[in-house]
Amino acid sequence: MDALDALRNKRDTRTYLDEPVDDAVLARVLDAARMAGSAKNVQPVRLVVVTEQGTKEALKASGDFATWIDQAPVLVVVTVRGDAGPRAMFDVGRHAQNLMIAGFAEGLSSCPVTIHHPDVVREVLAIPGDIDPAMIVSLGVPQPGEKPPAAIASPRVPLSEYAARDSWSG
Amino acid sequence: MDALDALRNKRDTRTYLDEPVDDAVLARVLDAARMAGSAKNVQPVRLVVVTEQGTKEALKASGDFATWIDQAPVLVVVTVRGDAGPRAMFDVGRHAQNLMIAGFAEGLSSCPVTIHHPDVVREVLAIPGDIDPAMIVSLGVPQPGEKPPAAIASPRVPLSEYAARDSWSG
Repeated sequence: MDALDALRNKRDTRTYLDEPVDDAVLARVLDAARMAGSAKNVQPVRLVVVTEQGTKEALKASGDFATWIDQAPVLVVVTVRGDAGPRAMFDVGRHAQNLMIAGFAEGLSSCPVTIHHPDVVREVLAIPGDIDPAMIVSLGVPQPGEKPPAAIASPRVPLSEYAARDSWSG
Repeated sequence: MDALDALRNKRDTRTYLDEPVDDAVLARVLDAARMAGSAKNVQPVRLVVVTEQGTKEALKASGDFATWIDQAPVLVVVTVRGDAGPRAMFDVGRHAQNLMIAGFAEGLSSCPVTIHHPDVVREVLAIPGDIDPAMIVSLGVPQPGEKPPAAIASPRVPLSEYAARDSWSG
């Protein structure tokens, strides 16, 4: 898929076919996430890829809006070193976006899931105390009818409102 | 450019040819950023695109490592609504990554620049108090010899170290 098409057409969706994600596809998607940059190339981001049903169910308690996540074929828990500083969540966003855009290019849908209870994630996945569970990204083959891109387009503000020139009101 | 190639090969670089970025190219890059997702599609992210030399020079005081940024042809100041909550910087990262990947696909290099002094940015660009200047992204045509991708490859941890399976040590 063309890069600009992938970047423009990816939407966050959370209903998936009940079928596993192909291992080779998943490896390519994870690899694209791996190559995302980080402040000073410290590489504070690590992933835990969850496909075991019991583990996915246990992760439902990690977020206030996460009751559905055990139905995603794959959950990718994005973690970041606790000492990564103020740019930690920015770097998490870069890695997650690479993951989701690569997934879209490979025919997968995805959605970020906010973690409200990081201690749940830490306990379920045996994540050490100096590592912060930062975000969960669900991944799967989209339901027919949610096939990207057109059918599920979320509206966006026009470019003229999104980007000003040389000053806030420019 | 193929999406996975763009995601894998993009590196953060900060030396650019002294030439402007083509308007049509810049518009496509900004549009790719615009289409990035956000929590609940609230769309709290807005950009200020800076090309005026005096404005770029004034923005050098915004960061502790930003003395070079007036030499970038374009600075994109990524802002986020102050009430966007804990996912604000994650969404900023998603938008910035779309911007940088689209730029790479269009032959531009880029680099995030940390803002240590948001009040400087606010004053220079007349950004309201309820909007947070979150990150600056530099953009430009790369110097010969820094042409992406191979020559400037920053090393990354191997995939086996980057992504665990079903638990932290899995």
